[in-house]
Amino acid sequence: MQLGMIGLGRMGANMVIRAMKAGHDCHVFDTHAEAVDGLVAKGAKGSTDLKTFVDGLDKPRAIWMMVPAGAVDAVIAELTPLLDTGDIIIDGGNSYYHDDIRRAGELKDKGIHYVDVGVSGGVWGLDRGYCMMIGGEDDVVARLDPIFKTLAPGVDEAPRTPGATGEPSTAENGYLHCGPNGAGHYVKMVHNGIEYGIMAAYAEGLNILHHGNIGKTTQTTDAETTPLRNPEYYQYDINLPEVAEVWRRGSVIGSWLLDLTASALRKSPDLANFEGRVSDSGEGRWTLLAAIDEGVPAPVISSALFSRFASRGNAEFADKLMSAMRFEFGGHLEKKD
Amino acid sequence: MQLGMIGLGRMGANMVIRAMKAGHDCHVFDTHAEAVDGLVAKGAKGSTDLKTFVDGLDKPRAIWMMVPAGAVDAVIAELTPLLDTGDIIIDGGNSYYHDDIRRAGELKDKGIHYVDVGVSGGVWGLDRGYCMMIGGEDDVVARLDPIFKTLAPGVDEAPRTPGATGEPSTAENGYLHCGPNGAGHYVKMVHNGIEYGIMAAYAEGLNILHHGNIGKTTQTTDAETTPLRNPEYYQYDINLPEVAEVWRRGSVIGSWLLDLTASALRKSPDLANFEGRVSDSGEGRWTLLAAIDEGVPAPVISSALFSRFASRGNAEFADKLMSAMRFEFGGHLEKKD
Amino acid sequence: MQLGMIGLGRMGANMVIRAMKAGHDCHVFDTHAEAVDGLVAKGAKGSTDLKTFVDGLDKPRAIWMMVPAGAVDAVIAELTPLLDTGDIIIDGGNSYYHDDIRRAGELKDKGIHYVDVGVSGGVWGLDRGYCMMIGGEDDVVARLDPIFKTLAPGVDEAPRTPGATGEPSTAENGYLHCGPNGAGHYVKMVHNGIEYGIMAAYAEGLNILHHGNIGKTTQTTDAETTPLRNPEYYQYDINLPEVAEVWRRGSVIGSWLLDLTASALRKSPDLANFEGRVSDSGEGRWTLLAAIDEGVPAPVISSALFSRFASRGNAEFADKLMSAMRFEFGGHLEKKD
Amino acid sequence: MQLGMIGLGRMGANMVIRAMKAGHDCHVFDTHAEAVDGLVAKGAKGSTDLKTFVDGLDKPRAIWMMVPAGAVDAVIAELTPLLDTGDIIIDGGNSYYHDDIRRAGELKDKGIHYVDVGVSGGVWGLDRGYCMMIGGEDDVVARLDPIFKTLAPGVDEAPRTPGATGEPSTAENGYLHCGPNGAGHYVKMVHNGIEYGIMAAYAEGLNILHHGNIGKTTQTTDAETTPLRNPEYYQYDINLPEVAEVWRRGSVIGSWLLDLTASALRKSPDLANFEGRVSDSGEGRWTLLAAIDEGVPAPVISSALFSRFASRGNAEFADKLMSAMRFEFGGHLEKKD
Repeated sequence: MQLGMIGLGRMGANMVIRAMKAGHDCHVFDTHAEAVDGLVAKGAKGSTDLKTFVDGLDKPRAIWMMVPAGAVDAVIAELTPLLDTGDIIIDGGNSYYHDDIRRAGELKDKGIHYVDVGVSGGVWGLDRGYCMMIGGEDDVVARLDPIFKTLAPGVDEAPRTPGATGEPSTAENGYLHCGPNGAGHYVKMVHNGIEYGIMAAYAEGLNILHHGNIGKTTQTTDAETTPLRNPEYYQYDINLPEVAEVWRRGSVIGSWLLDLTASALRKSPDLANFEGRVSDSGEGRWTLLAAIDEGVPAPVISSALFSRFASRGNAEFADKLMSAMRFEFGGHLEKKD
Repeated sequence: MQLGMIGLGRMGANMVIRAMKAGHDCHVFDTHAEAVDGLVAKGAKGSTDLKTFVDGLDKPRAIWMMVPAGAVDAVIAELTPLLDTGDIIIDGGNSYYHDDIRRAGELKDKGIHYVDVGVSGGVWGLDRGYCMMIGGEDDVVARLDPIFKTLAPGVDEAPRTPGATGEPSTAENGYLHCGPNGAGHYVKMVHNGIEYGIMAAYAEGLNILHHGNIGKTTQTTDAETTPLRNPEYYQYDINLPEVAEVWRRGSVIGSWLLDLTASALRKSPDLANFEGRVSDSGEGRWTLLAAIDEGVPAPVISSALFSRFASRGNAEFADKLMSAMRFEFGGHLEKKD
Repeated sequence: MQLGMIGLGRMGANMVIRAMKAGHDCHVFDTHAEAVDGLVAKGAKGSTDLKTFVDGLDKPRAIWMMVPAGAVDAVIAELTPLLDTGDIIIDGGNSYYHDDIRRAGELKDKGIHYVDVGVSGGVWGLDRGYCMMIGGEDDVVARLDPIFKTLAPGVDEAPRTPGATGEPSTAENGYLHCGPNGAGHYVKMVHNGIEYGIMAAYAEGLNILHHGNIGKTTQTTDAETTPLRNPEYYQYDINLPEVAEVWRRGSVIGSWLLDLTASALRKSPDLANFEGRVSDSGEGRWTLLAAIDEGVPAPVISSALFSRFASRGNAEFADKLMSAMRFEFGGHLEKKD
Repeated sequence: MQLGMIGLGRMGANMVIRAMKAGHDCHVFDTHAEAVDGLVAKGAKGSTDLKTFVDGLDKPRAIWMMVPAGAVDAVIAELTPLLDTGDIIIDGGNSYYHDDIRRAGELKDKGIHYVDVGVSGGVWGLDRGYCMMIGGEDDVVARLDPIFKTLAPGVDEAPRTPGATGEPSTAENGYLHCGPNGAGHYVKMVHNGIEYGIMAAYAEGLNILHHGNIGKTTQTTDAETTPLRNPEYYQYDINLPEVAEVWRRGSVIGSWLLDLTASALRKSPDLANFEGRVSDSGEGRWTLLAAIDEGVPAPVISSALFSRFASRGNAEFADKLMSAMRFEFGGHLEKKD
C-alpha cells in the first residue's frame, strides 16, 4: 500500500527501507534534503516541501510521523490544513499517551484520523523488524494492516508459544492493536518502564559480582565504617564479559538486553567509555505516574528510575543533609573517601 | 567419560539422560528404586546402595550430587568414608556458596576435591541444555570438561555476540569456570537475584496495564481516598496475553522469562490458579546479603525480594501499625475495602 | 481581627474555638445547623445561609474554607458571586497545589485574593496549635498575620534552635509564608510525603522486632523455602509497647509520631483493631509526582507509598504473575501457607 | 553504686560524669592518661593500668566498656583473666548482637556475666540522658538498675503516654531490659535502622523542595531528555531553614532529628561543608540482614541504606552498564551534564 513518512532520522528512514523492500509505495518528507535524496535513491518518492509531499499522496492518505516527541504537535499543526477528511496521521514516536488522546480529539473534529504507534526495536529494527503497539479506531487500524505486517518482525522471529496454533495472530507477528487512541503509547510506555527495571536488575547483579573481590582489599575500621566481617567470602575476581556470555545460553535470565550487555562488556570490560550518567527519556517517569494514579505498587520500576536520577547527581542535596544530620547528633565527620 | 550421579529427581535424572545421549558412562544412585530403575532402563548402571554405587566407579571418581541444598551435607558425610584420595564431589544443587567454601576446606583435608556448579535451566534443561557456573580448582574443573560440554546448551543456542570469533569459549557454549570454590554458586546466586528483579519488572508492568481501566469504575471520594483526577486516561481494557505475545518479537524486552509469561497468560489470562503467595528459595536473600556486605546498592533486587515477602503476608504488622498511627493523629478509621 | 469560617468539621470548629479564645471576631457558616449552633453558643456569629454569612462580614472580607479538598471548587463557585474586590478566600484544606495555582488565577480576574494554607496538627491542633504553611501574595498574607499567629503553636512549643536569637520568626511560631500561590500546599504536600516515609520506617522496624522470635518456630525445609540458617539469633520476644516507650526519651528517633505509636501499642500491643489496609489521601502520591517531574530520587517516600498500595491488595495480579512464572520455569507450585 | 568504666572517649567520659553527679562511685580506665586525669579531677578513681583498675573495684565487679565495636573482643580478652566469678562485663558500644550471644556464652563458662547495652543519645546524652536498650540475665540486669536509672533521661524528659499511670516503668525512664543476651543490641540495631529511614525521609522531602524552582531554568529538549511539561508548577524558591523550623512546632513530623535538621540548615542553608558522602556504621546493614532472615519486607530501610551506598559512588559500575546498554540498543550517547 501507499505510505507517507515524515521524519527521516534513523528510525524513519529504516522503516521506509523495510517497507519498500516489501513493495510498498513510499513517499517521504524531511527538511533535510540529503535525507530525502538518500531514500529517493532507494526508490521512494520524496520532497522537502510539505505541501508537495501531501499532494503526492492518494486520498485517503496515510501519513506516518517519525519525529521527536517534542516536535509532533508542530508537525500536526503544519500538516492538518493540507489534509482532507478521512486522512490518517500516524504518530510512531515516543509521545506521551495523554497527548495522543488530546490530538485524536482535536483531529476528529476535522475528520482526520489519528493512530498512535509505540515502536520498539531501536537501531536494530531494520533487520529484526519493529515491535508495534497500536492505538486507534478499529477500521482505521485495520486499513493500515499491510504496513504494520511488513514492519513487524513476523512470527518466525521467535518460537510460537506452546498452545498457539493455526494462523498466527498479529501479536505473534509482532504488532498489536491495543485499544482506542493512546492505548498504543500507553502499552509502549509500560514496556519501557519494564525495560528500566530489567536493565537495572542486570546492572545491580553485575555490580555485585564486580565487587566480589572486596575481601582482598584492606578494610578500614573506624567509627564511621563497619568492617567486613567475613572477607574470605569476597575473594572472587569474576570475569564479567564471560559471565554475561554464559548466561545467554540455557539460563533463566537470557534476554535480548543480556545479549546487548554481553556485547558491551566484550567491547570494554570496565566500560571505560561511560561515566555512568544515565539518561531517562520520559516513559519510565510516565509509567510511574500511571502506577501512582492507579494505586498500583511499582517498587522495582521506581527504584530503576530513581537510580538514573541519582546517577546524574540529583540526590546530592539529600546526601549532604544526611551527612549534616550525622554531624549534628554524633559529631560524625564525612569521610572523604 | 564416566559420571556418577546422586539424586535422581527431575533435574538429576534429566542430566543423566542428556549425558548418556552423548555417550557418557553414567552410574546412578538414589534411595528410590523406581528412580534408579527408570534410568537403568535407559542404559545407566544403578544402585540403591551407596557403597555399591561408589565401588562401581573407576578411580579417581567423579560424583555429581543433585540433591536439595538442605541434604548436601548429610550426603557428603555418608559419601566421604567411601571415597579415595583424588576423587571429585560435585554439588550441582542450590547451595549457599559459604557452604561450598567450608565443604571444600573440609574435603581438602581428606584429599577429596569439591566442585560447586550453579545450574540454571530448570525443567527445560533436558532439551535446551543447562547453563552452568562452576567453582573449583583449575585442573579438577578441566578434568570434568567433557561432562560440562555435554550438559551445556552449546554455542548454537544463541547467535554469537558481535566480535566473538574463532573457537567458541566455554562461556559461549553455556558453561564457565568462574573461580575457586564457591565462585560457581556465587555467580549463580547473583543470577537468581537478577531473575527476581526481572520477574518483578514484568509483573509490575503488567499489573499497571491490568489496572488500565480503573477510570471506568466509579471513584470514591472521601477523606481517606484521593480521587482519580483524570479518569479519561484510564479507559483501557488491555489484552495481557496478547501484549506479552507482541513483546516477544522485535522489542527491547524480549526474554525467555517473557516467553514463559506469554505461556502462562495464554493458559489463563486471569491467572486464576494462583493466589499470589510467591515463594523465595534463598538465592535472592543471599544476593542481598552479598550486596550489603559489599556496600553495593541493590534497590531493584531488594524491592523484588520484599514484594515476595509481602505477598506472603509478612508486612501485616507493619501495615496495622501505619493504620494505627493514622488513627492516632487524625482519627482516621481503616476503610474495609 | 475578623474571620469567617466555612466548614465546621473537627478541624474548622477547633480552629474557630482557638481563634475566639484569643479574642478574634469569628463568623461561621455550615449547612449543618448544629455545627453552627455549637459555635454560636461559644460566642461566634453564625449562619446556615451563605449570603447572610458573607453579608455579615466587614469588607475586605477574610473567609477561611475548611472543607474536603473535593468540595473546594464548588464552595468557591457559590461564594464568588457574593464577594467584592479585595476580599480574601483562604483554603486551609488538603488541596493539590496545582488547583491552588489555577484558582488563584481565576479569582485574580475577579479582584479576589486567594491564600492556600497547608495545615498540620490533625485532631490535636486545638491544644497544640496548628503548623501552617502558607502560599499567597505578600501583602495579603501579611494582612492575615494575626489569625495565623493565634492558630499557630507559638515559639514555646519547642526549644529554640541553637543560634536562633532575638524576636522569633513566624516559622519559629509555627507558621511560614512559603511563597506565591500554591507554595503553602506544595510544602504541606512534601511534609506529608515525609510523614509517609517516617511512619513506614517505624512500622518496618517494629515489624522486624515483632518477628524477632522466628527462630523459636519450627522451620519448614523444602524446595520452596530457604531454611533459617541461624535460629539462635531469633529467640527474642520483644515487648513492643515498652520498646516504643523507651525510644521516646533520650534516643535519636524520638518524635511525635513515635509518641503516637507508643500510645497505639499501649492500647493494643497486637493492634487487633486494625486489618492493615492503609489508606493514602493524596499528598504522598503528589509528592512523588513532583519528585518525578523534578528528576529527584525519592526511594524512601515511594517505598512507603507503595507499601500502602500493597496493603490494600493492589499487588495481587503482579504476585500471581510471579508465581505463574515460577511454575512455568521450574514447576514450582505455590505454597498455600 | 560502684561502676568501673573502660574507654573514656566522649561517650564513656560523659557517662561517668553523669553517674558521678548522681553520687555513684566511678573508677575509670583508659590508656590515655589525660583522659583518666580529666575524670580523676572530677572525682573519679582512675588508672592507666588495667590490673590496678580491676583490683580497685569491689567484688562482684561491674565494669562497663565504652570502646569501638572492633575493640571489644580484645578488651574482653585482656580483662577476663583479671576477673572473678560473679563479675559483670557491660558492653555499651555498638556491637553486633551476634557477637553478644557468642561472648555471653564464652564468659558464662568462666562464671562471668555479660550485659549488652545499646545506647542512643550521642553527644547529647550528658544533658539529655541516654536511652538504653539492655540484654542479659534478669538478676544481673536488676543489679545494675541504679546505674541505668541514673544514666537514663528520666520520665520527665517527655510527657507520659496517655493511659500510663502510677509508678513509671523503666521504659518510661528511658531504659529497658529487652530480653536475654543480645536483645539490647538487637533492639538498638533496629532503632538505628529506623533512624536511617527517618533521616532519608527528611532528606528526600527537603531535596524535593530544594528543586521546587526547576521550572525557572530553561529545559533541554532532546532525545535523551523528557521536557518538564508544566514548568509553571515548579516556580518556588523555598527557604529550607525556615521550612525545617516551621515543621518543628505543631506538625505531625516534629522530631529530634528534625530539630537537628533545622540546626544544620540554620548554620548553612546550602550545607556547603558537606560533600554528600554518607557513612554507615553497621547497624543499618545488620537490620536488613535480620529483616531478610525473618522474611520481613523492609523497603524503606533498605532504600535508605542503599542511598548511602550510592552516595559514596558504589553504584558507578551499575550506572555505566545502564548507559552502555542504552548505547547498544539505541545508539544513545551519555549526556555529560
